[in-house]
Amino acid sequence: MASKFVSERNIKFMLYEVFDVESLTKYAYYQDHNRKTFDMVLKAAIKLAKDLLRPVFEEMDRKQPELVDGEVKVHSAVGKMMKEFGQGGWITSRVPFELNGEQLPHLVADVCDFIFQAANYSGHAYAGLTAGAAHLIESFASKELYDTYVPNMYTGNWQGTMALTEPEAGSSLADITTMAEPTDKGYYLIKGQNIFISAGDHDGVENVVHLMLAKIHGAPAGVKGISLFVVPKKRLTQNGKLISNDVVVSGVYHKLGYRGCPIVQLSLGDGNDCRGWLVGEPHQGLRYMFQMMNEARIAVGMGATCMATAAYYASLEYAKTRRQGRKISQKDPTLPPIPIIEHADVKRMLLFQRAVVEGSLSIIMQCSKYVDLMKILPDAEKEKYHLLLEILTPIAKSYPAETGILSISQGLQCLGGSGYCDDYPLEQYFRDARIHPIHEGTTGIQAMDLLGRKVIMQNGQAFMHYVAELQEAISVAKTFRELEDHAQQLKEALNRLQEVTQHLLEIAQSKGPESFLADAVLYLESFGIITIAWQWLLQGIAIQKALKNEVKKADLNFYQGKMFALHYFYGYELPKTLGLAHRLMNNDELTVKMSTAYFSD
Amino acid sequence: MASKFVSERNIKFMLYEVFDVESLTKYAYYQDHNRKTFDMVLKAAIKLAKDLLRPVFEEMDRKQPELVDGEVKVHSAVGKMMKEFGQGGWITSRVPFELNGEQLPHLVADVCDFIFQAANYSGHAYAGLTAGAAHLIESFASKELYDTYVPNMYTGNWQGTMALTEPEAGSSLADITTMAEPTDKGYYLIKGQNIFISAGDHDGVENVVHLMLAKIHGAPAGVKGISLFVVPKKRLTQNGKLISNDVVVSGVYHKLGYRGCPIVQLSLGDGNDCRGWLVGEPHQGLRYMFQMMNEARIAVGMGATCMATAAYYASLEYAKTRRQGRKISQKDPTLPPIPIIEHADVKRMLLFQRAVVEGSLSIIMQCSKYVDLMKILPDAEKEKYHLLLEILTPIAKSYPAETGILSISQGLQCLGGSGYCDDYPLEQYFRDARIHPIHEGTTGIQAMDLLGRKVIMQNGQAFMHYVAELQEAISVAKTFRELEDHAQQLKEALNRLQEVTQHLLEIAQSKGPESFLADAVLYLESFGIITIAWQWLLQGIAIQKALKNEVKKADLNFYQGKMFALHYFYGYELPKTLGLAHRLMNNDELTVKMSTAYFSD
Repeated sequence: MASKFVSERNIKFMLYEVFDVESLTKYAYYQDHNRKTFDMVLKAAIKLAKDLLRPVFEEMDRKQPELVDGEVKVHSAVGKMMKEFGQGGWITSRVPFELNGEQLPHLVADVCDFIFQAANYSGHAYAGLTAGAAHLIESFASKELYDTYVPNMYTGNWQGTMALTEPEAGSSLADITTMAEPTDKGYYLIKGQNIFISAGDHDGVENVVHLMLAKIHGAPAGVKGISLFVVPKKRLTQNGKLISNDVVVSGVYHKLGYRGCPIVQLSLGDGNDCRGWLVGEPHQGLRYMFQMMNEARIAVGMGATCMATAAYYASLEYAKTRRQGRKISQKDPTLPPIPIIEHADVKRMLLFQRAVVEGSLSIIMQCSKYVDLMKILPDAEKEKYHLLLEILTPIAKSYPAETGILSISQGLQCLGGSGYCDDYPLEQYFRDARIHPIHEGTTGIQAMDLLGRKVIMQNGQAFMHYVAELQEAISVAKTFRELEDHAQQLKEALNRLQEVTQHLLEIAQSKGPESFLADAVLYLESFGIITIAWQWLLQGIAIQKALKNEVKKADLNFYQGKMFALHYFYGYELPKTLGLAHRLMNNDELTVKMSTAYFSD
Repeated sequence: MASKFVSERNIKFMLYEVFDVESLTKYAYYQDHNRKTFDMVLKAAIKLAKDLLRPVFEEMDRKQPELVDGEVKVHSAVGKMMKEFGQGGWITSRVPFELNGEQLPHLVADVCDFIFQAANYSGHAYAGLTAGAAHLIESFASKELYDTYVPNMYTGNWQGTMALTEPEAGSSLADITTMAEPTDKGYYLIKGQNIFISAGDHDGVENVVHLMLAKIHGAPAGVKGISLFVVPKKRLTQNGKLISNDVVVSGVYHKLGYRGCPIVQLSLGDGNDCRGWLVGEPHQGLRYMFQMMNEARIAVGMGATCMATAAYYASLEYAKTRRQGRKISQKDPTLPPIPIIEHADVKRMLLFQRAVVEGSLSIIMQCSKYVDLMKILPDAEKEKYHLLLEILTPIAKSYPAETGILSISQGLQCLGGSGYCDDYPLEQYFRDARIHPIHEGTTGIQAMDLLGRKVIMQNGQAFMHYVAELQEAISVAKTFRELEDHAQQLKEALNRLQEVTQHLLEIAQSKGPESFLADAVLYLESFGIITIAWQWLLQGIAIQKALKNEVKKADLNFYQGKMFALHYFYGYELPKTLGLAHRLMNNDELTVKMSTAYFSD
């Protein structure tokens, strides 16, 4: 098993040099923290990841969850992990002091999750889902609901879930049919089917708390009639005893990967005794759920980044130790073989991975920083960061999800035949990572969200903020000789993106929404590459600032390596936007015109 | 389980309309065949695929081969398949009449393999490897060796393998250390280790015949000292009894996919009693092996095409039946949901798959046709096709291998969460297909073969033939109004490829071979896309010719669908060469200059 799964050096570079997390501690909300406490938190996270999560990474995959006597049996480590995450304050890392949380900046809390998920994505999923579900209750539910559920979730005794997929309502939430019948006892009677519920049942916790979408009898059709409920697996009696709440696990999926965490099917109210408690107002469920959903989308991007990161270090380790072949210019077969990392093509594959994973981490942390700024800035200044978060969420989800798979695939390729075998972790990462373009909104959904909602929202205000952020980075980068060319490249790419956007908006006018959105996935891809190029430029600026001072040899190698990854991104990745723009400027409506009948043979 | 795994309509279109296989029957060698016999053969292949191969496609994956008491246990269907492939004449389909074969054109025999592999790749691998190994013996070994081994291989009683990978010699064959000690009894004593041997041992056959590389004691270092041997698992005594030949199975790999066929580790001569028989001349082993290797490389491209083809039909079937969401322009939630195939983005994913799989099949069949032409043309005309095959082999291997994975991934994406679960076959295709960029020479090896050998061989003669073939297709296409634009696009892309090639040759001169080959994989990718664009243009020409006559409604839909796939390829895929060319015209030697020390953190 590869030993390294994250780079502590890179994490600190990102936290302190690129995103300057220390600057947040000047504000009242984060004033109790400082670099020392952050370093301690990071150290503790790495220790926990190494001691508890990493050792069972493979085992949790090999012994996948099974449904036994109506309950999902998971690896015995899961219960321990939930307790550790609860007791260690990891589930409550972002929760305010006043609610007994750690009130850590998102930047720091998110980096800790990055460490946990790089060690064992499935292992952390339980806690991550619980934190999200608890935050949803905290944000919108009554104090009574909060008191009943959240403390037990924060300790890791109870699992939280996000339950919004039904057999006939996957991407199309408008078609939800789970019903909620009001009673006069303060609860609703729930009836329906849920599918694809992550951690939807397991024996590692005492109870499972579903944050579930359903329609109150008589609600309007479509998404306007959706409400949000708390539906526990077991409900509390007045004596504080947990009894069954008529939530039946009707199946557990056998999956390509992500096997350490069960995904289940639920049948609700078969015995007419499934009780749900309304969160907030009726018919506002989708709006509430989207708080958790947006967090979950960025979390998916994070998860993809984590897997690709760990895969990168595994392939790097292999490439440094595996000897094979000789320099192309030195074919003498009597010379000893060289480590494969010395072959240019292997370096290309490693640089691709590094450019993707460190670029992906950067955009995730950029989002974390915006969340933090929204916490601490006065209301008038928040809106900008809110809009930036809105427009970047589909990117932060989909770029790491889509490119992470390619990155892992290149990592696997570095190992040749060994990469295909389960003696090395690459094949597992390759399987695990394939979930990310699917869950919490497919890439197609993200693309429509970006182009069909975010780019045009508030008269393009979010897009304008985005452009302004890039332009600012470009003008700073231009002051460093080493970055001048890249600043110019990004400027040209950004201009192209603006032209493409303008062109598509004209298509929307002249040909309607279907043609407008037909190639939204290509637009998303292009937007993603340009966004990561921006993030690399920000990293370049931090590197160049650091290099103005004298640095140690090890640091010099680190910075030089990062500069090569930056050059790689601009040399190999950014040019991909040329072909994408070429296609996007087209008017042929090819996919709109293609008829189903033509797919007949 | 999806029912359709190939399109008979498309197969016949390719065979009869694009590659005009009937024209081959005008030549003496193929004169005993005609369209009627071809159709019968195809029918029989489809029946065998449906009856024998397809039903166990999943089961062979779920119950993977295990090493039990020194022998690899495989699914019970394997023995039956080998017998059917032997008795049905499928192993000998390309073997001349005089050796009791069927003497079918490669075009037809290869299409039959396409059908088998689309039904169950692992299931056909046993027979495919046996045919290749037997062909190697037939081509280079003595009559005695032929008589001892080949008849039993042709009947499917004995398995053939290609054994050329060792623990310290994967991509670098120069480092082979398996030794062959001459004896005075006509055989050599073999000692060494082999790894990653497909079908290297199993209980579905009576014996296994390894075509194995080894070095005769005292041979020159490197590839010049490699000889080829027949090394059976069991050898025949003078009484015709099979006894152990000291070939020990030291392990079976547990793999990501391709699980229906075992890949094993062999230990040879631990008891100093492993006998091998020299094939042909000493030290000529690599040259001989490359006959089988080149066939195997195209076969890998074929296998990748097969998996992606079957995956395409599985996702198409799902997209036609799964209802979800509404037209973007009709969001009324009271309307019934539409089949997802009606969403433009789903059509885009399906068109991508179709463009890839039908383009990949086309380049494979183009190679088959060249092999056939080499069989029937006078020597003076053969050289051109030999060179075309040489330059197209790395493309025919790597384009389907690399793009097939992306195609399957898009197929999986069409199914959303269901695609990630093993209730549908997509997840298996996704695992199975990942082997193809690795076995029989990684994509990196193919790239160096293309740019470092094939493009420059015989003063660029192969490349010039390639350019001429494309130019011919372009000039024919220009005579059809529907193809004019695409002909022009291909012309421009070909010009760009020539410029890039010229640029790289100058780099070779000025900066040496390492810089020349550093981005060979990008060159291969670009070359591959342009090659498939050419193949689509050839298909376009066949379609336009057909449309000059009156056609039935079903045929019209078929041709129209193919035209859309053609437009898709030119609209979405060919533009990718813009970004690739942009990178390839660069001079920065980024990956050459990147130092290992920079990968330190």
